[in-house]
Amino acid sequence: MSGSSFGKLFVVTGFGESHGPAIGGVVDGCPPGLELSAADLQVDLDRRKPGQSRHTTQRRESDSVEILSGVFEGRTTGTPIGLLIRNEDQRSKDYSEIADRYRPGHADYSYEQKYGVRDYRGGGRSSARETAVRVAAGAIAKKYLAERCGIGIRGHLSQLGPIRPDTFDWDQVERNAFFWPCAETVPRLESFMDDLRREGNSIGAAVTVVASGVPTGLGEPIFDRLDADIAHAMMSINAVKGVEIGDGFACVGQKGTEHRDEMTSAGFLSNHAGGILGGISSGQDVVVRIALKPTSSLRIPGRTLDRSGAEVDVVTTGRHDPCVGIRATPIAEAMLALVLMDHLLRQRGQNAEVKPPLPPFSGTSSS
Amino acid sequence: MSGSSFGKLFVVTGFGESHGPAIGGVVDGCPPGLELSAADLQVDLDRRKPGQSRHTTQRRESDSVEILSGVFEGRTTGTPIGLLIRNEDQRSKDYSEIADRYRPGHADYSYEQKYGVRDYRGGGRSSARETAVRVAAGAIAKKYLAERCGIGIRGHLSQLGPIRPDTFDWDQVERNAFFWPCAETVPRLESFMDDLRREGNSIGAAVTVVASGVPTGLGEPIFDRLDADIAHAMMSINAVKGVEIGDGFACVGQKGTEHRDEMTSAGFLSNHAGGILGGISSGQDVVVRIALKPTSSLRIPGRTLDRSGAEVDVVTTGRHDPCVGIRATPIAEAMLALVLMDHLLRQRGQNAEVKPPLPPFSGTSSS
Amino acid sequence: MSGSSFGKLFVVTGFGESHGPAIGGVVDGCPPGLELSAADLQVDLDRRKPGQSRHTTQRRESDSVEILSGVFEGRTTGTPIGLLIRNEDQRSKDYSEIADRYRPGHADYSYEQKYGVRDYRGGGRSSARETAVRVAAGAIAKKYLAERCGIGIRGHLSQLGPIRPDTFDWDQVERNAFFWPCAETVPRLESFMDDLRREGNSIGAAVTVVASGVPTGLGEPIFDRLDADIAHAMMSINAVKGVEIGDGFACVGQKGTEHRDEMTSAGFLSNHAGGILGGISSGQDVVVRIALKPTSSLRIPGRTLDRSGAEVDVVTTGRHDPCVGIRATPIAEAMLALVLMDHLLRQRGQNAEVKPPLPPFSGTSSS
Amino acid sequence: MSGSSFGKLFVVTGFGESHGPAIGGVVDGCPPGLELSAADLQVDLDRRKPGQSRHTTQRRESDSVEILSGVFEGRTTGTPIGLLIRNEDQRSKDYSEIADRYRPGHADYSYEQKYGVRDYRGGGRSSARETAVRVAAGAIAKKYLAERCGIGIRGHLSQLGPIRPDTFDWDQVERNAFFWPCAETVPRLESFMDDLRREGNSIGAAVTVVASGVPTGLGEPIFDRLDADIAHAMMSINAVKGVEIGDGFACVGQKGTEHRDEMTSAGFLSNHAGGILGGISSGQDVVVRIALKPTSSLRIPGRTLDRSGAEVDVVTTGRHDPCVGIRATPIAEAMLALVLMDHLLRQRGQNAEVKPPLPPFSGTSSS
Repeated sequence: MSGSSFGKLFVVTGFGESHGPAIGGVVDGCPPGLELSAADLQVDLDRRKPGQSRHTTQRRESDSVEILSGVFEGRTTGTPIGLLIRNEDQRSKDYSEIADRYRPGHADYSYEQKYGVRDYRGGGRSSARETAVRVAAGAIAKKYLAERCGIGIRGHLSQLGPIRPDTFDWDQVERNAFFWPCAETVPRLESFMDDLRREGNSIGAAVTVVASGVPTGLGEPIFDRLDADIAHAMMSINAVKGVEIGDGFACVGQKGTEHRDEMTSAGFLSNHAGGILGGISSGQDVVVRIALKPTSSLRIPGRTLDRSGAEVDVVTTGRHDPCVGIRATPIAEAMLALVLMDHLLRQRGQNAEVKPPLPPFSGTSSS
Repeated sequence: MSGSSFGKLFVVTGFGESHGPAIGGVVDGCPPGLELSAADLQVDLDRRKPGQSRHTTQRRESDSVEILSGVFEGRTTGTPIGLLIRNEDQRSKDYSEIADRYRPGHADYSYEQKYGVRDYRGGGRSSARETAVRVAAGAIAKKYLAERCGIGIRGHLSQLGPIRPDTFDWDQVERNAFFWPCAETVPRLESFMDDLRREGNSIGAAVTVVASGVPTGLGEPIFDRLDADIAHAMMSINAVKGVEIGDGFACVGQKGTEHRDEMTSAGFLSNHAGGILGGISSGQDVVVRIALKPTSSLRIPGRTLDRSGAEVDVVTTGRHDPCVGIRATPIAEAMLALVLMDHLLRQRGQNAEVKPPLPPFSGTSSS
Repeated sequence: MSGSSFGKLFVVTGFGESHGPAIGGVVDGCPPGLELSAADLQVDLDRRKPGQSRHTTQRRESDSVEILSGVFEGRTTGTPIGLLIRNEDQRSKDYSEIADRYRPGHADYSYEQKYGVRDYRGGGRSSARETAVRVAAGAIAKKYLAERCGIGIRGHLSQLGPIRPDTFDWDQVERNAFFWPCAETVPRLESFMDDLRREGNSIGAAVTVVASGVPTGLGEPIFDRLDADIAHAMMSINAVKGVEIGDGFACVGQKGTEHRDEMTSAGFLSNHAGGILGGISSGQDVVVRIALKPTSSLRIPGRTLDRSGAEVDVVTTGRHDPCVGIRATPIAEAMLALVLMDHLLRQRGQNAEVKPPLPPFSGTSSS
Repeated sequence: MSGSSFGKLFVVTGFGESHGPAIGGVVDGCPPGLELSAADLQVDLDRRKPGQSRHTTQRRESDSVEILSGVFEGRTTGTPIGLLIRNEDQRSKDYSEIADRYRPGHADYSYEQKYGVRDYRGGGRSSARETAVRVAAGAIAKKYLAERCGIGIRGHLSQLGPIRPDTFDWDQVERNAFFWPCAETVPRLESFMDDLRREGNSIGAAVTVVASGVPTGLGEPIFDRLDADIAHAMMSINAVKGVEIGDGFACVGQKGTEHRDEMTSAGFLSNHAGGILGGISSGQDVVVRIALKPTSSLRIPGRTLDRSGAEVDVVTTGRHDPCVGIRATPIAEAMLALVLMDHLLRQRGQNAEVKPPLPPFSGTSSS
């Protein structure tokens, strides 16, 4: 594998399978002096965790995170932060019937072709369960960005199947089970999801995340542009098939006079660019939108192959999210936070705020 | 900066400004034994270079590439390949009037906020001129992938402003100035572009690239997924604002039964996934689509600021592409080739095909 | 921080302080199919762990490692391997008197100047306790190298203070408390160490590690040479102040005719090079020697400063190794294994041995 | 290959063979605003270049460097700096007789086993000619470190075969052909080298480099320690077989009371540690010593094999350095500068000194 780390100066490394003993990771590069406790991470973990409503998987995981290192007397020390989340609610027998067959649209097939073996219980490493570690790591970044730089990151579900919000209100987002910014259309979502669940099917969705208060100058051309790293981060989330910055694909039909964000001394007059110009943050809100596919764990039979190459039907009977997009909002926020944090440290240095306790010695350089 | 390299085992590093003495780069990690000459790179460089029709910038660059190292007696040696392209047609005085003002929608502002200085001539490092190096490097990857692995990579313009192809024929793509797969609609493109040029405006576009013959198993979960690295690569191209894999944003409205690609012993029945499952190649065509914004170098005045913060108007009088999407097809192909090449080497090793001339010694381990 | 990972394709990331809840790490990039259990790692952990004789620290740690992921039905799956070792025997109060003063020769001062804070308990992150994670990770690499490639790695103490072995016998190394290759001189070591302990002082040492059965061709010029990566790995071990490959510093006085290893059809006639030529393995034994300084945690008072800059004396009263070199042999073996493993994967690929269960489909490339 | 880059934020990538058209590289990550011209690099290139005295190779290379990018109006812009040095004095026919045989002790054998092919002319990529690029890149780092941070880096030859300096005077170092700190012993060096040249043999050497004015806090535990990165950098230089920090191997015989550097309010009382504690700079001089082996290109015949495995004798008739250590001083200085520069940027950020021309807008965050 060897692709389990993300970031250059703020490096997150994850491990863990859905039905193994635990998932966890290491957050390396957090500057010293940040107040931090497990409770700070738990807020976002709880927003992501399953079973919060009837519209997500009914698997029951407390997703309690333990901080194993890097914090001393309530503050980060600058050393790596070890994170551990024990797995709890495992019904591995649910998966025995897919042990040797490949759910169409699922990573079952590609993992087994690559590795020759897979931990089929709950999807193993390909399960979205690993995103809990991203959320925990992202919560550290979010806290640092908010407290030290005034950067705020928030997100919302922006489309679920055919349904879009009629109105937009950030205050509504945390008041329903969907991270949905429009109170009026929540009943339509509920009814859509209830039908879908009865049908045994799944549905796609879109999530939008926004970072405010981003300073100018984050992002390293040519290849480590801020938007390129955001695209990398977002497309690494399970089920994501598309990423847009600012107007995204709407740009295709735009003329230059329409797209360009003119400036006056009061600031930009629009934000078609989504806060990034030439790969570098412009100081406007960074706006990112992602498309999530409908999951492939369905109760409706599908044609596929088994490990011997024989044609079989497959049905998935475990507990699954009919719309992974619903729980994706905190994950996308976390990934945006990781990218911004990494670029902030590249720009400002890792220990820029540290004041060494002792001044330099005079005449210490005896060699 | 420090973001000028791409790839982990097949590493491309670029340098160069639009109006400096030269652009160039280093391709590190090419396996030994590949037949290679500058002519192999020139084919794609010529496809990308300006001035090929009246619809792209009239700047005249031969974009002749020199191979400075890494090739001996007509074959690669496994050592880094140095590439050099001298800049030729520079009219730096065209840019004097934007030296201290920021074109709206352009990297002028963000570069200067980040670095405190910028080479304003022709956009300097933010110019799309650097993509010539990507194309040259990508041509090496494309050649290796084709000759050693049977992987073919090709692309086409898939939308220009409001215009989409009526029909699809790969054979048409190289027969017009637009990389356009539909002969019937080429006159509409020409007329649209002529109008646009008269207007002094620019337009967005979409490009689609496809890799065929990709083996199963490329891509490293969790963060170095094949699709994540592709998203990174594509979003790093100038003017790109969106990336889709397979059905991309169309997934948002799809149900699971519609999206999942069922399998029979003859293979997959569809390719909504775009050839990637769980971040790992499935053996199907890898299909990528990107959105390019309309450029911001316009003859129509725009409101902006100058370096002192005063409100001014800006007009760009130099020679510019009214649709950067037109020349983007070979660039997107190159970036896809770089990603596949890197993952192929991660999977198979860098020198997997080498046969050491001498067998291991018996009894050589005297310590 | 952000320097807590080692390797490019076989990546080890560690975390943990001496007196925190646990130490641990992630081993990313282990190929699938390797038989692995915690017991395989415990062997080397036990060789390193404290309290094995009266000559090392009397802190009692079982150093029991738990494998949290990456192993399924007794074999590696190719996914990251999470490792956890709980800390047990902590007497943090031993350290209260050094909380605000800097032991001379210790990392106390440099950590606090860098981070503005330090976990002073047991040295925190600067404690050699973190090397247990290296040993656990290295044991995985050693097992793979031995079973799949016939590469054997072993080491021994080659000097302790003024004492060198009179004779050399690999079979003796594991039969005494010092990893010492000469039975005759063990009593001299014991007596030397007993005197040292009574004195409250510490002593330097040298360790030699050797890898046999290394194939030709490992190592990537120019900067990722095999010897350069070995030097990096070894110098990253606590207390190491020097690294030699082959004849090392003895080369300074040698002539070319004396140093060059001539070859006949039976193999090399000598191994002054230590198995590496031009940064690439030659097939001979890779021979590495490291120098370890005497530790700075002494019962003999030393002049230093406290956090306020005042001159004070400091005495270290905790339980410490009077010669860290004694326990360094398994650590150095582990680091050599990590380097060889990484370069083996770079050369051969990560999944070179995997046979995909299904052959490629014919006609699957529907796009 | 893929090992041709060094550094994380200040990244140097090199290319080029001894007898190809050119060598060169890319320096990525230099902060903007540094005054820089080719002349600044030429000083150290001239110190390294061959033919400066009868004691080094008589190959005549002007080693004139061209800066191709990254500098605008005499100052760096923050974008990558392209470097080009054309090769001039090539007598490739000198090498025809070693085209198919392996000089003992040389990289000939290991390169060909690894790559299956090698550019045998002048050693190709394994030639020390590539170090000119390191010196050019290092000169940029040295200039930045000196002008912006007050860090001075200098080095000297500290041993040549059996000869050590009798006295030490930094002012002597640049006054003789050997970078030798002792005027009295220069005649002994000259006579030793003259004898050696007549004999057709070569000799080892040691070089010492020292960095003064280093701030506290550089270096990232655990694996990216300052000393570990220095060891990596130094061991990557051609012919280096050993690296020491501070007292190095002399530590083996030292007691803790002897080694530890006590502190008073005036500073450290000694510098056995070589300026690095726990992998982090302590503010003292960073002191590094390296051992260079005698080169293997000798006029005295040696036993070896040819490409077919047959036993043959080999003689090297080209123009070679009988002591590569002599020209190694500026190379070692350059590598130390690269490591310090990289860690300085990690600590302080890449653009810490930049003042954005415009203040943040009020109310710009329209999304």
